Amino acid sequence: MGRAGDEIRVAVSTVIFSLRQDPDSDRLMIPLVRRTREPYEGMWALPGGWLDVAEGVHEAAARTLEETTALTPSYLEQLYTFGEVDRSPTRVVSVVYWALLRSDLVDAQRSVAGAPENVEWFDVDALPTLAFDHNHIAEYALWRLRNKVGYSRIAAGLLPDEFTLSELREVYESVLGRRLDPSNFRRLLEGSEALVPTESFRTGKHRPARLYRYNAEADEAL
Amino acid sequence: MGRAGDEIRVAVSTVIFSLRQDPDSDRLMIPLVRRTREPYEGMWALPGGWLDVAEGVHEAAARTLEETTALTPSYLEQLYTFGEVDRSPTRVVSVVYWALLRSDLVDAQRSVAGAPENVEWFDVDALPTLAFDHNHIAEYALWRLRNKVGYSRIAAGLLPDEFTLSELREVYESVLGRRLDPSNFRRLLEGSEALVPTESFRTGKHRPARLYRYNAEADEAL
Repeated sequence: MGRAGDEIRVAVSTVIFSLRQDPDSDRLMIPLVRRTREPYEGMWALPGGWLDVAEGVHEAAARTLEETTALTPSYLEQLYTFGEVDRSPTRVVSVVYWALLRSDLVDAQRSVAGAPENVEWFDVDALPTLAFDHNHIAEYALWRLRNKVGYSRIAAGLLPDEFTLSELREVYESVLGRRLDPSNFRRLLEGSEALVPTESFRTGKHRPARLYRYNAEADEAL
Repeated sequence: MGRAGDEIRVAVSTVIFSLRQDPDSDRLMIPLVRRTREPYEGMWALPGGWLDVAEGVHEAAARTLEETTALTPSYLEQLYTFGEVDRSPTRVVSVVYWALLRSDLVDAQRSVAGAPENVEWFDVDALPTLAFDHNHIAEYALWRLRNKVGYSRIAAGLLPDEFTLSELREVYESVLGRRLDPSNFRRLLEGSEALVPTESFRTGKHRPARLYRYNAEADEAL
């Protein structure tokens, strides 16, 4: 301790998933921030910054996310802490948070705060080469989302309060990056406790479709 | 940065669960280390220590665990990072790891390395008041173990390679701290992919019981 270069610093970063509209279908995307200083000046990185001595790690994640992207998700959850020796030119331990954010809330927050400079949304399956080990972190977050987050959490995080099973399936297809069989999907969800049927229906040019609600009491393991 | 007292330091701690024998039944226990210096001198704490600038957080967890308890689990998994401002007299961010360790391996390691000083195993449901926020950390680890770790992980972590359904049920009862209905338990497990039946049987005074193996390919979410 104390020698020059022996310092370990703590940073926070956040991976925010949202579905952004595309002519074809919704695409799963995350916001990145272009770095304006060395190291990795000019490259894209996850939103984040240094932990301040007077704030908790969770508060630091929310603060740095708001400062860099003007986004304020309704919740942030700790994902993982990355602390390998060689992940940065100096010694940095990064506590990484994540959240799912509904696209209508992204748009609403943007219309209030304005679109911040140096921020762009990128398709998770077509990320550029990022600063530090941020490609690795984004891949880990995506792996967790695709493999360990259940239907009800996806529904709660990326959809409005009420939705049809087709809408949920389309969201799930965007997250997984592949098509799902509609009847199998319906059978699986109707038999689970993840969703609660409502007495409302979505009407339109197709036949009326029942609206469902996320069942907060049957929350699955992350 | 740089003012005295403004320093943020990174520590690692580890929660090791094992089943320790008791006349009645096995009890779920964790090893604690008695502190030999201030703050909290003389109180029990989770095994751990400072992150060294030249090692990754995972290596630091394994090193400090071995140095304090002489235990070397076959794997350590990151649990959570605790980074509230007031969790320690100085500013410390603790990256916490956990593992499940079979009791026969605990005994084997102890017979090689000797029982280290200042280490004792405590029943998770009867912990003393611990140093720092370590009661909170232990409770969080126990909550995760009881709520979010499935049958197959428990089996893989706390039982020998092959075991009967009754043995698994007894382990699960120790983890959960309550009795389970034997026929419901059998029905649930026989229908799952978490376990693979072998062609071997446990014989003895009761009727022969089939031995099962943990199915590594059907690993559940933590």
